[in-house]
Amino acid sequence: MAAEKEKQQGLTEKKEGDFSEWYNQVILKAQLADYSPIRGFMVIRPNAYALWEEIQNNFNNAIFKKGVKNAYFPLLIPKSFFEKEAEHAEGFEPELAWIESDDKDVEEKLAIRPTSETIMYDSYAKWIRSWRDLPLRINQWCNVLRWEVKQTKLFLRTREFLWQEGHCVYETEAEAEKEALMFLDEYRKLSEELLAIPVVLGQKTDSEKFAGAKKTFTIEGLMPDGKALQMGTSHNLGQGFAKGFGIEFLDKNGKQDFPWQNSWGFSTRLIGAVVMVHGDNKGLVLPPRLARNKAVIVPILFEKEASKVLKKANEISKKISGLNPFVDSRDSYSAGWKFNEWELKGIPLRIEVGPKDIAKKQVVVVRRDTGKKEFVKEAKLVSRAKEILEEMHSDMFKKAQKFLKENSVKADTWPDFKKALAEKKLILSPFCATEACEEEIKDETTATSRCIPFKQDTKKMKCVKCGKETTIKAWFGKSY
Amino acid sequence: MAAEKEKQQGLTEKKEGDFSEWYNQVILKAQLADYSPIRGFMVIRPNAYALWEEIQNNFNNAIFKKGVKNAYFPLLIPKSFFEKEAEHAEGFEPELAWIESDDKDVEEKLAIRPTSETIMYDSYAKWIRSWRDLPLRINQWCNVLRWEVKQTKLFLRTREFLWQEGHCVYETEAEAEKEALMFLDEYRKLSEELLAIPVVLGQKTDSEKFAGAKKTFTIEGLMPDGKALQMGTSHNLGQGFAKGFGIEFLDKNGKQDFPWQNSWGFSTRLIGAVVMVHGDNKGLVLPPRLARNKAVIVPILFEKEASKVLKKANEISKKISGLNPFVDSRDSYSAGWKFNEWELKGIPLRIEVGPKDIAKKQVVVVRRDTGKKEFVKEAKLVSRAKEILEEMHSDMFKKAQKFLKENSVKADTWPDFKKALAEKKLILSPFCATEACEEEIKDETTATSRCIPFKQDTKKMKCVKCGKETTIKAWFGKSY
Repeated sequence: MAAEKEKQQGLTEKKEGDFSEWYNQVILKAQLADYSPIRGFMVIRPNAYALWEEIQNNFNNAIFKKGVKNAYFPLLIPKSFFEKEAEHAEGFEPELAWIESDDKDVEEKLAIRPTSETIMYDSYAKWIRSWRDLPLRINQWCNVLRWEVKQTKLFLRTREFLWQEGHCVYETEAEAEKEALMFLDEYRKLSEELLAIPVVLGQKTDSEKFAGAKKTFTIEGLMPDGKALQMGTSHNLGQGFAKGFGIEFLDKNGKQDFPWQNSWGFSTRLIGAVVMVHGDNKGLVLPPRLARNKAVIVPILFEKEASKVLKKANEISKKISGLNPFVDSRDSYSAGWKFNEWELKGIPLRIEVGPKDIAKKQVVVVRRDTGKKEFVKEAKLVSRAKEILEEMHSDMFKKAQKFLKENSVKADTWPDFKKALAEKKLILSPFCATEACEEEIKDETTATSRCIPFKQDTKKMKCVKCGKETTIKAWFGKSY
Repeated sequence: MAAEKEKQQGLTEKKEGDFSEWYNQVILKAQLADYSPIRGFMVIRPNAYALWEEIQNNFNNAIFKKGVKNAYFPLLIPKSFFEKEAEHAEGFEPELAWIESDDKDVEEKLAIRPTSETIMYDSYAKWIRSWRDLPLRINQWCNVLRWEVKQTKLFLRTREFLWQEGHCVYETEAEAEKEALMFLDEYRKLSEELLAIPVVLGQKTDSEKFAGAKKTFTIEGLMPDGKALQMGTSHNLGQGFAKGFGIEFLDKNGKQDFPWQNSWGFSTRLIGAVVMVHGDNKGLVLPPRLARNKAVIVPILFEKEASKVLKKANEISKKISGLNPFVDSRDSYSAGWKFNEWELKGIPLRIEVGPKDIAKKQVVVVRRDTGKKEFVKEAKLVSRAKEILEEMHSDMFKKAQKFLKENSVKADTWPDFKKALAEKKLILSPFCATEACEEEIKDETTATSRCIPFKQDTKKMKCVKCGKETTIKAWFGKSY
């Protein structure tokens, strides 16, 4: 913190200015992350890791109720495993980091996991014998490595990232798909109810689906720069991996069969989404349910009454301990400097306590998102602070929802499509859903299909690009 | 589970028989872990991962109170980093797994972290400027890789393992050492109060200390086969790493200086300790505070009254929901088979509910460690079950403590030392504490010094091996 004092404390770029520069400044100055000496890697600092832990706790609670259990599988995967599912192998081969095998007593080449389907399903083949072993629902929280050559962006695109990957096995495809959609809905809830970020749901086109999946489902957020962000995906894997890895089970009729699988994952890029969607020109704005420390208490210290004010600040901290607040009692910093610091770091509520407030048995509560000040009687602080936090969550979500709505448009013709794209919109267009046509759209505009919404009319339309008849509408946009 | 049915359900080896085979059977049959296709790696299955999560939650609560924050640093470390602290480099060089660098856009060779001092301290050098930034206390939970050539043992010795590593920076050595000892004491508490495993505390000799540390402190448990297990260590790192990585700070007098550091870690081997110390010939015995599901409810189903009994079982499950119980209502297994299964898996309490019990408004509660049955009135179940669990923790700890006491002996002469070692004891002996003498003891007996207890007499004695005069007594034993 003191190190920061020597540099410029606040942001020198505006959100509406160079968005990318603003984003990096928020992350570095709010001490969410730092660059690593190795290109493409990042250090997740305590301020961001606490958010990841809150996401983990929240999501664990949700999936434990669905019968999911957490486990941990090896970091290294033998080369031959990648070859057991052809599309999967092709999709990940270029991104693998291999271990040097000189002097090592290994029989075959090993790569750091880019995702764990293969290493997990090798175990599943040993564990699953009959319908009694199904459904099997396992999730793991871990690091993965994808040696992408694209440019790195903190949280959004790094070679190593943290994520969760759920991998389930079922007797029927209907169950596998039903639960793939159920986990997608858990992602939606996590995004809306914890991160206060609205999302668009749907299915990926064949060009955009996961390597080895039969179908991929996604939640997509719209960022302030008009780019879509894939925030979580779930996959109906069909029986491809089961066949590749020899996962078989004896069904209720005594017949040997291959089971059906799904997998689903989200990563630390969610933290990047929070920064982009909610941040402002003062820095980070944390959605209150996500923030670990929901309030900072700043005692307004005047020489004579300093000890009295400090005592009251600590008393109030105890009173609202459910919000996990902290008292900033450092005497080498001014109150104003502290205000700036905790605004930069996004703490949802600032509670100011000064001699005058004590006399009036009140405190000043300031909301981070609106800057709105409110005098709250000490006696009512516990309940009022909770209310304000819930109002804040609701307002932040509504604001993001309004942005999404205002920036989502329909385009039925190619000129309209290009115009909307230039205006940085998320675009819903009739689409033939062929790979060739999607390729053309991408080549001409760099936009990709984001997803095909689940609810579709049956009306016949013409593909926005090629004009072929279709009944499908899909979301398009540039993306991270 | 059904797969297990086809094999032999219980253990085929006794704890007092081939201990190592018994240990592996408990782990595999209680589904704590499985072998990986890659030698030296293991799969941590949900039953064990839940224990790791409980350990994490418990320890996070403890260290957050001490001002520690969690973070995450990169998996890969550049070669040059290992060379910045000479002893550290020498200690870890043989165990590193390097990434193949052909076609990768990396400037220098990268290794998978065997521990994270170097990658963390590179960041610390950027973050620390003045005394205001200290103390800095950061912990991370992660996977590490040490390409050991010794034989693998599930949980105790694997090439990849999960652990926590805390890394703190202070203005003075006194603080660094004081807190190294404080974190060691947190390890003691975790072991005793959560795992019900008593430990011996002390300082490592120079031969046994961490590569790069000035002093290493340790907690050591005694396993039933007479081998000591290092269960957690903390290190006073001195200023060696600070100098190597250029971590400097401006002290309160305006002078530039190198800060003092400590680090501390424990790993998933704690789960192996729990298996060894508490397990019996029926399988795993989970210390009740560690068990996620503290009770299994087995309805004793007779055709006519099945639905009534099942209803009551679910009612009871709700009533004791604080114990996170589950009802085993599967109808394809007998009650006896279920008893065996949950004994094998170590669930602390079995609660039986049958038609007769319902009539008497009671249930049968069976303790996993003693097998003791107790009829408990339904109305008293909530409080009595909690009491039984606490009695169980206390009894399990006392039993382990008795074993440690009975198997810890003093030996002042070399013949006594060798006799005690043959009897599989942990041995306290006068020791000159020189590396040469320790080497001789190891060569002749394979025993190593485990630690030098903190409390020492000032009495002059003669080294158990070389006869040189000393005032130090140290613990010796064979170890994992």
